[in-house]
Amino acid sequence: MRLLRALLAEALGTLLLLATVVGSGIMGVRLAQGNDGIALLANAGATAAILYVLIVVFGPTSGAHFNPAVTLAMRICGAIDTRTAMAYVVVQVIAAIIGVALAHAMFDQALLQPGTHAREGAGQWLSEGVATFGLLLTILLGAAHRPAAVPALVGAYIFAAYWFTGSTSFANPAVTLARSLTQSFAGIRPTDVPAFMASQFAGMGLAVAVAAILARNDVEEDSRGQYVGDAPTIPEDQ
Amino acid sequence: MRLLRALLAEALGTLLLLATVVGSGIMGVRLAQGNDGIALLANAGATAAILYVLIVVFGPTSGAHFNPAVTLAMRICGAIDTRTAMAYVVVQVIAAIIGVALAHAMFDQALLQPGTHAREGAGQWLSEGVATFGLLLTILLGAAHRPAAVPALVGAYIFAAYWFTGSTSFANPAVTLARSLTQSFAGIRPTDVPAFMASQFAGMGLAVAVAAILARNDVEEDSRGQYVGDAPTIPEDQ
Amino acid sequence: MRLLRALLAEALGTLLLLATVVGSGIMGVRLAQGNDGIALLANAGATAAILYVLIVVFGPTSGAHFNPAVTLAMRICGAIDTRTAMAYVVVQVIAAIIGVALAHAMFDQALLQPGTHAREGAGQWLSEGVATFGLLLTILLGAAHRPAAVPALVGAYIFAAYWFTGSTSFANPAVTLARSLTQSFAGIRPTDVPAFMASQFAGMGLAVAVAAILARNDVEEDSRGQYVGDAPTIPEDQ
Amino acid sequence: MRLLRALLAEALGTLLLLATVVGSGIMGVRLAQGNDGIALLANAGATAAILYVLIVVFGPTSGAHFNPAVTLAMRICGAIDTRTAMAYVVVQVIAAIIGVALAHAMFDQALLQPGTHAREGAGQWLSEGVATFGLLLTILLGAAHRPAAVPALVGAYIFAAYWFTGSTSFANPAVTLARSLTQSFAGIRPTDVPAFMASQFAGMGLAVAVAAILARNDVEEDSRGQYVGDAPTIPEDQ
Repeated sequence: MRLLRALLAEALGTLLLLATVVGSGIMGVRLAQGNDGIALLANAGATAAILYVLIVVFGPTSGAHFNPAVTLAMRICGAIDTRTAMAYVVVQVIAAIIGVALAHAMFDQALLQPGTHAREGAGQWLSEGVATFGLLLTILLGAAHRPAAVPALVGAYIFAAYWFTGSTSFANPAVTLARSLTQSFAGIRPTDVPAFMASQFAGMGLAVAVAAILARNDVEEDSRGQYVGDAPTIPEDQ
Repeated sequence: MRLLRALLAEALGTLLLLATVVGSGIMGVRLAQGNDGIALLANAGATAAILYVLIVVFGPTSGAHFNPAVTLAMRICGAIDTRTAMAYVVVQVIAAIIGVALAHAMFDQALLQPGTHAREGAGQWLSEGVATFGLLLTILLGAAHRPAAVPALVGAYIFAAYWFTGSTSFANPAVTLARSLTQSFAGIRPTDVPAFMASQFAGMGLAVAVAAILARNDVEEDSRGQYVGDAPTIPEDQ
Repeated sequence: MRLLRALLAEALGTLLLLATVVGSGIMGVRLAQGNDGIALLANAGATAAILYVLIVVFGPTSGAHFNPAVTLAMRICGAIDTRTAMAYVVVQVIAAIIGVALAHAMFDQALLQPGTHAREGAGQWLSEGVATFGLLLTILLGAAHRPAAVPALVGAYIFAAYWFTGSTSFANPAVTLARSLTQSFAGIRPTDVPAFMASQFAGMGLAVAVAAILARNDVEEDSRGQYVGDAPTIPEDQ
Repeated sequence: MRLLRALLAEALGTLLLLATVVGSGIMGVRLAQGNDGIALLANAGATAAILYVLIVVFGPTSGAHFNPAVTLAMRICGAIDTRTAMAYVVVQVIAAIIGVALAHAMFDQALLQPGTHAREGAGQWLSEGVATFGLLLTILLGAAHRPAAVPALVGAYIFAAYWFTGSTSFANPAVTLARSLTQSFAGIRPTDVPAFMASQFAGMGLAVAVAAILARNDVEEDSRGQYVGDAPTIPEDQ
């Protein structure tokens, strides 16, 4: 029963995340008179805002992964068991696809549309690796240092990553797969999906390794009482 | 006397909310040289910001509903009695209309203008249902998990919903009615109002049902000590 | 000595506030290719952000008024004495003018420029009254209900008020006077200043009266234990 | 070992900061159809968001300086020793350059490009002095009054400073040096770097002096119990 409720939370969260990513892209392009800078400001702002909401609202029930790369990282860290992780991923993929269809329905479009937006090449793949590395580092170190801030951290990180990566930062295999089913602003060609996913899992793996080094650090320092707090301070005891 | 103060808070909050929704729409269109993407960025940003302020400022006095769908949900949950709920709704509707007139006055326009902006069709109705479902889920689960964050959650949610729904997310029957009295950016035709309201109450009802399942979950888990905190964490006890 | 430090804080805060209001207006117009919607997004975003910073940073030293209308309201509420209030206002006006000159210097413009931007008429005056009413209500009720949030509340309120009022919300007599010394985006004709100031003080007075009603409410309720917290909640005791 | 982990945190943070500054500039220009106002909104928003994330995530490990001017200020304040400060600066410079190259790689551009964007003259130099003065004041007084807010304060300050200064606020010698290796939106001519750095260190020095006056104030007042809290309040004991 507890698992079912966690899966309901994962489903609703992933569905609303995809509806926001795709829907705000459609609305942005519809209103921005061809200026994709304005469309991406709207797309990034809406995605950041809904991530903050969804992680606060569903976090206590499921952990608010909404992302197979996060679920796999949590499995590696031992936070969830293999059976739960597999159920999460299945639900995430199905809910992501329904979220895309919901966005299309809200804009009176065909429910599923094979993606046509070409996204390939070394810059794109590097971008997805960097984007997912940064996302997982944000989650893992944020959870270690300031867990209550994780919803705001993830939202802020994704806003930045939409802009600083060459791929606009998918950083999520379920999102990538689902976005291959829209021809709108947020779409991707189905043939470009596997390379994106490979880059994302590589970035995730690197983040888990780096977080293991940096998160351990913190605990030691605390016990030695030298670096406390989570902001630059002017200690008076040195 | 306590009720009168609560009604004053509902009145001021709803009035300032509508003044912001309509006023920022007028200013956005006036300045954006026909680029409605920029106008909606301004409209969504201003609405999100004022919601954060109004809920912090009036919340302790009235609960900061500003929305008959919220008031009805609170009645269903038993948080307020029927007489208070009815008084809230009457005040919300009157204050919303005054707020629209105030916005028009600040821009030297006719105080009330029968709306001419057509908003109809399955996509629009679905959008209002989804928008209100998400808003109520945000409020109910936010209040259950992190009550101090509700003002920021509602602001962030509405920013996203302005962009990801096909209707720009009215999500409020009093706001919908009042917006039928402006011909500006935020307006709606009076004949389109009833279907919007029906969709909003349907979305609200679904949210109350879903929140009842998910909010209950949290309490149980806490007592079993397995999912604590409200962000993805890396528990070490598993 | 304590007063001198408070005056230094008021001076630095007001100076940096004006440098931001005027400087971001100049930069916005310079970059936005004539689209004043983009310029106002930048102007409002920069002003909101710096207000959050300045109130956190200077609040503990001076209360972070930066505004004669706030100082007068604090005098009415008995928070500061008359002599301190008069010193604050003198410093605010001088620092505001220096802030305008600093903005001009950073953009290689003449240090002081008699304003030429006409801002008059009933809509403008109503706007300034509403803007200042809302600002003071935000400060007074925010300080009563959630003091640590006042910096974010003021920033968010001003972002919204830049957009929802017909005057772009000066809401500050010292700022109004200083902005009559720039011909840039943020400027105002000197002859339009007195009516703006009168509207601002009227709005302030109304806010003090309304806050006295609503802030008192809260204390009573808390003692009766019925409305606690500062967000819509679902009490279970009714 | 502790120093190595701190250096890893400084390296990752500075690298990701530069990747964001340069990458979001490239993306902004690519999408904004020549409207640099939209590009700077994206650039400022992305930079502010990533600063919030990086300071939360790396602050407990290294203090999250990412900036030789901050490191020197911390050395002056006695927060770190000389050897650590020198190691920080070396790592910051190297990581900043790698961050620029990473941004270029994500957009399939030449890894290092000698900067061609002229930035010189009194307005620019004054701007860098003011920008760095404000940044250091924000950090030092923020750490004194509300340390947990420093990540949000720095992000908000930089968003404002991108807009209110004539130079778009580099405010960081390592960032300035690294940005001389890109020909994109965020670039600067190598010959303009030394004057920027001199202005930045001058602004930093002034901020340390002013912070010493204002931060001391706070402690005294607290002990006298008159100005407590960090927001304008209405004390009832006067």
